[in-house]
Amino acid sequence: MAEDLVFYANPMSRARIARWMLEEVGAPYRTEWLTFDGTMKSSDFLAINPMGKVPTIRHGKTVVTEAAAICAYLADAFPDAGLAPPTDKRGDHYRWMFFAAGPLEMAVSIKAFSLNVPKERERSIGCGSYESVMDALSFAVTQHPYITGETFTAADVYVGAHISWGLQFGTLEARPEFQAYWDRLKERPASKRATAIDDEEMHRQLAAAKG
Amino acid sequence: MAEDLVFYANPMSRARIARWMLEEVGAPYRTEWLTFDGTMKSSDFLAINPMGKVPTIRHGKTVVTEAAAICAYLADAFPDAGLAPPTDKRGDHYRWMFFAAGPLEMAVSIKAFSLNVPKERERSIGCGSYESVMDALSFAVTQHPYITGETFTAADVYVGAHISWGLQFGTLEARPEFQAYWDRLKERPASKRATAIDDEEMHRQLAAAKG
Ligand SMILES: N[C@@H](CCC(=O)N[C@@H](CS)C(=O)NCC(=O)O)C(=O)O
Ligand SMILES: N[C@@H](CCC(=O)N[C@@H](CS)C(=O)NCC(=O)O)C(=O)O
Repeated sequence: MAEDLVFYANPMSRARIARWMLEEVGAPYRTEWLTFDGTMKSSDFLAINPMGKVPTIRHGKTVVTEAAAICAYLADAFPDAGLAPPTDKRGDHYRWMFFAAGPLEMAVSIKAFSLNVPKERERSIGCGSYESVMDALSFAVTQHPYITGETFTAADVYVGAHISWGLQFGTLEARPEFQAYWDRLKERPASKRATAIDDEEMHRQLAAAKG
Repeated sequence: MAEDLVFYANPMSRARIARWMLEEVGAPYRTEWLTFDGTMKSSDFLAINPMGKVPTIRHGKTVVTEAAAICAYLADAFPDAGLAPPTDKRGDHYRWMFFAAGPLEMAVSIKAFSLNVPKERERSIGCGSYESVMDALSFAVTQHPYITGETFTAADVYVGAHISWGLQFGTLEARPEFQAYWDRLKERPASKRATAIDDEEMHRQLAAAKG
């Protein structure tokens, strides 16, 4: 029997990344909508994820937090979806997922929150300069059509979500190679299904808040 | 024939994490020592890693950057070392490696560089508050003796290196569970071999600099 797959989410959050991955995988799952500062900080949820954040999934007894980890985990847990390279060919898979979860996320946060890293600290901070992160990202999306080669995999969900978000909200430079890469992903049915589900819930919540 | 395994490193850097992993794996590798602001920023090296940072490895034609990615990659590329759980049991493996590469690294950097994240931004920044990151890390190291269960794996190299570094340099709270976890790792022969190699090169460089 298939194990229970539960998705803890909020429609206005990084949980959208995990939903896209869940829709790519195609296994049935149940969404539990959590509220910021509400159910996300309940003792029940903190016992599952002490960060009190979404996305979080529970698959049988296995809890996975961190959007990137959820993408990597689901690709391995549902091998029939074909979303992870074989284990002896995972250089780009790990390299770019960890790059996006680490330096890319950090560089974008530092810029978005106007934190100021002095030039002489770029050597010791894991993301170096914002420019070097943009250059590495350009490199990642121009080696092959997809991050790990000729076919779409979990790394494209995670890196693609960063690029889509970054282009939409201006947290990434609008480099043509970022747009070209996103153009290769944006028509994926799983991405559209995921967006439709989250948009519907978002509008429901916004309407309810208006009363 | 075994593929060429080259390790780009500097003895005073996060490359120490990757060397520990290389020593755990036990496959022969060759170190190329790079200098900060020197060979690390040469066009040859930037063509391999546009971030101009170490650690970086090349395994045959595969380049892997990011310390966490190198740990995950090597565990899969050398399955005989037994350093990755089977692909259907990788919840904790991915969860805590991505947690350490993302929120833990970011929270520690923000604190070390005295960047100031206003309280109301903790909801949207991926690492939340420093306290919540410490709590999640306490959780990670107290579920089982090792991160993924009863046996030592790649996730212990990566999380363990963060904890060892954090306790040594005071960037982590000195919680007893962090120390207890590190006590379970610190006598590993691979860790000691790695430290000896890097310490020797570090002392050589420091002596050479003195002239
Ligand atoms: N590093 C985490 C970040 C997750 C995160 O920050 N989620 C936000 C929404 S986008 C959240 O749940 N915030 C609630 C809070 O911190 O109280 C990941 O990549 O999944
Ligand atoms: N996110 C990278 C960070 C690597 C990193 O920042 N390495 C530093 C040394 S600890 C470096 O090579 N600095 C040289 C530079 O930025 O010029 C990782 O986790 O491997």
